[in-house]
Amino acid sequence: MSIYMIPCPIVEEHIDTIPESTLKALHALNHFIVERAKTARRFIKRSDHPTPLQEIDIFELNKHDPWEGLNEYLSKNARIQDIGVISEAGCPGIADPGSRVVSWAQEHNVPVIPLVGPSSILLALMGSGFNGQQFTFHGYLPHDKGKLVKKLRWIELDVQKNGSTHIFIETPYRNKSLLTTTCSCLRPGTLLSISIDLTGTDQEVKTLPIKQWIKKDAAFLHKRPAVFCIGR
Amino acid sequence: MSIYMIPCPIVEEHIDTIPESTLKALHALNHFIVERAKTARRFIKRSDHPTPLQEIDIFELNKHDPWEGLNEYLSKNARIQDIGVISEAGCPGIADPGSRVVSWAQEHNVPVIPLVGPSSILLALMGSGFNGQQFTFHGYLPHDKGKLVKKLRWIELDVQKNGSTHIFIETPYRNKSLLTTTCSCLRPGTLLSISIDLTGTDQEVKTLPIKQWIKKDAAFLHKRPAVFCIGR
Repeated sequence: MSIYMIPCPIVEEHIDTIPESTLKALHALNHFIVERAKTARRFIKRSDHPTPLQEIDIFELNKHDPWEGLNEYLSKNARIQDIGVISEAGCPGIADPGSRVVSWAQEHNVPVIPLVGPSSILLALMGSGFNGQQFTFHGYLPHDKGKLVKKLRWIELDVQKNGSTHIFIETPYRNKSLLTTTCSCLRPGTLLSISIDLTGTDQEVKTLPIKQWIKKDAAFLHKRPAVFCIGR
Repeated sequence: MSIYMIPCPIVEEHIDTIPESTLKALHALNHFIVERAKTARRFIKRSDHPTPLQEIDIFELNKHDPWEGLNEYLSKNARIQDIGVISEAGCPGIADPGSRVVSWAQEHNVPVIPLVGPSSILLALMGSGFNGQQFTFHGYLPHDKGKLVKKLRWIELDVQKNGSTHIFIETPYRNKSLLTTTCSCLRPGTLLSISIDLTGTDQEVKTLPIKQWIKKDAAFLHKRPAVFCIGR
């Protein structure tokens, strides 16, 4: 049988960001491994899945130990039926624990079928205007101030030297603090792109030099999901 | 006005990999900047665009000098109408010259709206089972054998040390040679994932250690579009 990697909307109600080909694959599945059961159920329901929700089998990954129980579930189920993997928002296996399911499948010779859908990382890169021929996604940068400044300066140097783009995220309530630190330690001419509420109705993608970000009130970022890019 | 980044199918006939939200944006546009006019016209036609093809304005980016004429076209048009950007396959601005249009727009305060669609880079990462929390896309690796081997060994070391995933591509007729070199210079236990014909009917995503790739006849890769990932 096969493992299907099913992207879900970034903004929950925008089901029209999921291609027909992905919805078709979703509707053929009745077994799912998910990052969070509540969100996954809402997505499955909103997609007009033909099976009643209570007949759908959902295995929720343990937030603290994604392997816990997973091996057993896969050994029991992956040989007899197709399984879909759904993450909290966007593409499973990217910036979430979904890749563990795939590594199991690859090791046990179970076919893996990745499906098309929204990725805030890619949308932010597309909207930045930065080099998309070479880029790195860092996930979260260090929280320790000293380490964060060191990392940001290393990124700035790499942009200057090699022209590659660097992408990172932060939990929304820390966005303001991340922007303040970034503005305080990078050169005035360095370009920073910030994407907020991607695929949402209030979506904004803005690329400006640090000297212009400094002048802005960082409040616009507060508690809104954002992706940061540094590049040229 | 705004610049819309419009993804197109990776496999031309699979228009169902494009979400409804992206098709809706596409159908509201009559001006496009494209990587290749012929492919873009076929995509626009296949999408059931409401405007007759001969009334649609298409500006083709110069393959050798993407800036040639672009500045003039944008200065003349981007203030008076919405413009869509379409690349050869997948997401514009990623691994293609489309980012030049966006950098112009960001500099001139023209809003940029990135739209959801297929990316072979992301699909390959989702299917690999490798770490999706930290990854680098390299585009093409060096063609010089010595430099290629050095780069591959550097990648292998980074995977071992930091656990990040490295993604790269090659022109299809060189895939076989890239696989042979990769197998000859990396350790037997290092994991390599190869994705071929993504979103196509013959799609394959396979992650194996080098010692198993060595045994395979590389002919299966010949002239088929592929994405390579090294990770763990």
